[in-house]
Amino acid sequence: MVFILNHGATKEKIDSFISGWEQKGFSTILSVGTEHTAVCLIGNTAEIDMDHVVQTTDIVMYGKRITEQYKAVNRTVHEDSTIVNVGGVSIGEGFFTVISGPCSVESREQILEIAQSVRESGARILRGGAFKPRSSPYAFQGRQAEGLEMLLMAKKATGLPVVSEIMNQTQIDLFEDIDIIQIGARNMQNFDLLKAVGGLKKPVLLKRGLANTIEELLLSAEYIVAGGNDQVILCERGIRSFETMTRNTLDLSAVALLKQKSHLPVIADPSHASGIRSLVPPLAKAIMAVGADGIMVETHNDPAKALCDGAQSLDLDQFGALMADLKKRAIIENKTI
Amino acid sequence: MVFILNHGATKEKIDSFISGWEQKGFSTILSVGTEHTAVCLIGNTAEIDMDHVVQTTDIVMYGKRITEQYKAVNRTVHEDSTIVNVGGVSIGEGFFTVISGPCSVESREQILEIAQSVRESGARILRGGAFKPRSSPYAFQGRQAEGLEMLLMAKKATGLPVVSEIMNQTQIDLFEDIDIIQIGARNMQNFDLLKAVGGLKKPVLLKRGLANTIEELLLSAEYIVAGGNDQVILCERGIRSFETMTRNTLDLSAVALLKQKSHLPVIADPSHASGIRSLVPPLAKAIMAVGADGIMVETHNDPAKALCDGAQSLDLDQFGALMADLKKRAIIENKTI
Amino acid sequence: MVFILNHGATKEKIDSFISGWEQKGFSTILSVGTEHTAVCLIGNTAEIDMDHVVQTTDIVMYGKRITEQYKAVNRTVHEDSTIVNVGGVSIGEGFFTVISGPCSVESREQILEIAQSVRESGARILRGGAFKPRSSPYAFQGRQAEGLEMLLMAKKATGLPVVSEIMNQTQIDLFEDIDIIQIGARNMQNFDLLKAVGGLKKPVLLKRGLANTIEELLLSAEYIVAGGNDQVILCERGIRSFETMTRNTLDLSAVALLKQKSHLPVIADPSHASGIRSLVPPLAKAIMAVGADGIMVETHNDPAKALCDGAQSLDLDQFGALMADLKKRAIIENKTI
Amino acid sequence: MVFILNHGATKEKIDSFISGWEQKGFSTILSVGTEHTAVCLIGNTAEIDMDHVVQTTDIVMYGKRITEQYKAVNRTVHEDSTIVNVGGVSIGEGFFTVISGPCSVESREQILEIAQSVRESGARILRGGAFKPRSSPYAFQGRQAEGLEMLLMAKKATGLPVVSEIMNQTQIDLFEDIDIIQIGARNMQNFDLLKAVGGLKKPVLLKRGLANTIEELLLSAEYIVAGGNDQVILCERGIRSFETMTRNTLDLSAVALLKQKSHLPVIADPSHASGIRSLVPPLAKAIMAVGADGIMVETHNDPAKALCDGAQSLDLDQFGALMADLKKRAIIENKTI
Repeated sequence: MVFILNHGATKEKIDSFISGWEQKGFSTILSVGTEHTAVCLIGNTAEIDMDHVVQTTDIVMYGKRITEQYKAVNRTVHEDSTIVNVGGVSIGEGFFTVISGPCSVESREQILEIAQSVRESGARILRGGAFKPRSSPYAFQGRQAEGLEMLLMAKKATGLPVVSEIMNQTQIDLFEDIDIIQIGARNMQNFDLLKAVGGLKKPVLLKRGLANTIEELLLSAEYIVAGGNDQVILCERGIRSFETMTRNTLDLSAVALLKQKSHLPVIADPSHASGIRSLVPPLAKAIMAVGADGIMVETHNDPAKALCDGAQSLDLDQFGALMADLKKRAIIENKTI
Repeated sequence: MVFILNHGATKEKIDSFISGWEQKGFSTILSVGTEHTAVCLIGNTAEIDMDHVVQTTDIVMYGKRITEQYKAVNRTVHEDSTIVNVGGVSIGEGFFTVISGPCSVESREQILEIAQSVRESGARILRGGAFKPRSSPYAFQGRQAEGLEMLLMAKKATGLPVVSEIMNQTQIDLFEDIDIIQIGARNMQNFDLLKAVGGLKKPVLLKRGLANTIEELLLSAEYIVAGGNDQVILCERGIRSFETMTRNTLDLSAVALLKQKSHLPVIADPSHASGIRSLVPPLAKAIMAVGADGIMVETHNDPAKALCDGAQSLDLDQFGALMADLKKRAIIENKTI
Repeated sequence: MVFILNHGATKEKIDSFISGWEQKGFSTILSVGTEHTAVCLIGNTAEIDMDHVVQTTDIVMYGKRITEQYKAVNRTVHEDSTIVNVGGVSIGEGFFTVISGPCSVESREQILEIAQSVRESGARILRGGAFKPRSSPYAFQGRQAEGLEMLLMAKKATGLPVVSEIMNQTQIDLFEDIDIIQIGARNMQNFDLLKAVGGLKKPVLLKRGLANTIEELLLSAEYIVAGGNDQVILCERGIRSFETMTRNTLDLSAVALLKQKSHLPVIADPSHASGIRSLVPPLAKAIMAVGADGIMVETHNDPAKALCDGAQSLDLDQFGALMADLKKRAIIENKTI
Repeated sequence: MVFILNHGATKEKIDSFISGWEQKGFSTILSVGTEHTAVCLIGNTAEIDMDHVVQTTDIVMYGKRITEQYKAVNRTVHEDSTIVNVGGVSIGEGFFTVISGPCSVESREQILEIAQSVRESGARILRGGAFKPRSSPYAFQGRQAEGLEMLLMAKKATGLPVVSEIMNQTQIDLFEDIDIIQIGARNMQNFDLLKAVGGLKKPVLLKRGLANTIEELLLSAEYIVAGGNDQVILCERGIRSFETMTRNTLDLSAVALLKQKSHLPVIADPSHASGIRSLVPPLAKAIMAVGADGIMVETHNDPAKALCDGAQSLDLDQFGALMADLKKRAIIENKTI
């Protein structure tokens, strides 16, 4: 149940309203938007006489029952679109933010060359995997801590904020200077990790799991936001279906629906979704057209020799061509790219 | 195995080349494009010495082994994009053709009002179901033959070519004046129906089955084209996945991949894919951006009272607004809408 | 809504009760069981005052609302398990009926050798495909009408009733002497075919579609039973999932659930479900243990040379060994095999 | 590539053989079985002349190329079935070990009553969740560390070994007295956790992820076994499909295939697979019949009041009845229950 407050509600009255509910055993979420301030109750609200509360509480304008399990990430509770800001870059409504870089950081030369090139082409954030979740124990596992250092070196050289995937909560200190922590598809329901990043003041890029529903993605985001960190970016990256010609099945309906159901920014990853280089540009355009707030796309200076996911990586020229195309399209979308 | 012929190959020599192979037990597909004429062999080609054939046959420029099971619909065999023409309307590369109309033809008034409105908004082809495949025997089964007559009346009144779904091959005569025969998702592997429409000279709109792979869709199209009817339009309409918030999962990677693998026109249906009205416009834009040759979208003059699929139907104003948006986007795509 | 009638209800009173409802616009299903006779109403029953009907109609014992869309196949409406009898063989509760034979009838020698062997091993019904639904138009399409004749010859020689797959309703006359008509997975929602076999007095084996839910399978059976033919056998044969190591994913929960939800016999097909010979025996045992009423299993006298599905076919000795095992297990299940 | 050694190979010669390969940059797995000792090479074995090695190394009997990515868990490398022993209980070939208990440990009384009852009925291992992975942050998260203590109290009182789910590697110390560490479906690809338990000398019950293939399950087990811990029990617990009438889709083909491909014990969980109490007994019987080495089944002393998963829990009498049935069936399977 959410109560939308009158514009004149004082901090004192709001605090009193909230503490009243908490004394009755409810948890509360206070959501301050540009239009409205709202208080959402978590708990067994079935027996609350909502109309009575509205009539007898002067700071309450009206109430609504929230049938969804997700509250803090729900657009009904928080109507304004959340904009995540990181190192001067905005992600969210009105922007189309391109995150690019290699699947794995391989060497200083590699990450630097790619970073400089994608920045020039128009990427605003640099990606690079240091800890790689691999199905096989015998596959390349990433450059680990050294990879993070290389990524930070490229950040320093180019000014691009950086994003990299965390594997578990014991690594949080290692990610201190990483601008955005990525939680990968396989960790979307690693609830202890979600709780841990919920305690940080740092943007989190949360990827949808391979077999997770849209509702489960929102509930995983709820773990983070309810924990106190509202800087969450949702990322659709393809789900598992019976189709084998592509690596995964990109679910663009999910992107459109997430934008309607939640106030959080939503991006998509055409590289992992398809697994095929030639599909990345058409899917990137579709992702923009469907209303996403950005893309995360894998780029490599020499895809044929990439240690990981070369088949789905664009080379630097292909990425440049894609960016030129997306820039033209951003005008019709009325988005800053 | 496909042999690309020299430009100077005479009909006589081509016929002789083909009959030579047929005497050896191979089936052949002759593919005449603007750039090239090609002869494709069907059968056990593993033991053919391709280089020897190229060297000893003066009309042959070069040969290629086709590893895919689909041949006649394969872009490797037939490089030119096929354009399907129906009643002055083109579907295929360079066009973005909008097919619109109600899920079911309900009455003369209904279909006429919708037809006039969608034509005015920019639809080029009118859809309307007369025979409805319904999961339950107790659900509305469509207006049947009378529905087809109503649809033809609307065609006459508006000049729009029409498309309607056939249920089985005994109905072919009923569809004589219907411009495009639709084969629905549940019939995608009704092979006798595919063979039957393969013998017609009439465009066929072939929808992907709910659990059928991209390769199976191409093989079903192959049944029709190998039967002699190359006027086939492929249609992605969402596949079944574990996600339940949407009716189906629209697979836009399939659209991009089909355009690469086959020369046939490819459209998509955002209405059945999502089952949710508010998702239709964003998906329609994504479908255009990913490179499809058109959309099929359900429209109704009074969705709340529709006998079928009202929740996913746009009303006439919403369709008009969508068309206005798509027309602007067609410019950037360099497509005739 | 279903009304369970008193034991003393006369035919005259029942007819009068039924015609009363039909005059009000409802369809009815009369279900005569050993314990109870029931009348089920189809239509908008929401406004019927059920208690009033029970109190004012002397032949009515009690009423129940049926929330499921399927009525005639619903165990709530018809509590007794249906036993399908064909040529002296029973399929249903208390029996474990083994159907065996080749994927395709290939020759008189082949089908005869297989038929004699599987009969000796304990199969009670012979299967053999004559019309084969194949994804590719270039794959072996079956021996067609000639195949049916060969199958009937084997029936005559061995006394085994036979089952074969129909492709469309124009073939019904061809199947006159075939004991059980099989509707394959791809035709589970070929509603015109379902309606056509609903008008026959001949058992129908209805296979679950690759992407069809349990509810949809029951609704497809409802098409047949509501059409007047209650001799329907349901068959689980594996659904499509993301797993690729097996051909399909056998859904044994569906078997157990179908037995609870419906009174119809339920069998399963371990051959198509797995696509792997070595998995057929363990799955066949599991199918028995989960409570199915039988199996349909592919057997071939020379699997390595089979024209179709050789990799999943047992040879005659393997089938014999499986039957010996199943016979021992039938004792513990208290079933006639 | 795996080399099967002669029976007379001395430890010294084996060590020398292994160190030779390691000097060349290969990792090795030494597998000691009752029949054979084998040395498996990990790395780029494509250029090794296998026949030459066999001919020139006296302790080598023969070599085989292993095409699968999983080596240490591969039955080709290690033909003997692995038996996991814990507190006097065996899990593996020849046994059918029943693990039972509540979804969540709720109180001392609850876990003790359940433990005593299931032991009496024939369960050999007690399960009880203390840390619960829940989709929603507002759902009951388990009794945490206190729950583990309650479980250990029940272990002490009944003598039953216990299994409980770990959430992340920082909890390993908390699990010191827990006999079997369970890695849940959502953590199947939490590779850091897999590596951590790979360093323990304690059995691990590894559940298949909701959207993970059989191969991925084997590769996750490979992480643990290659890490030095070969006490791994695989558990099929249902995968996600489009079917919604059951919670998940139990994949029994996976059980049969895992038994063929790997030497590790394989069990299945009918409770999570179906989510429906009435399906648990038939599925449990099917799991035994398909060849599994045991089941894990949820039991509760008062399912209607369970804090978690009550709908799929058997009550104590139902569990007792199931065990009585399974004991009879164990005879025909020739298994110790």
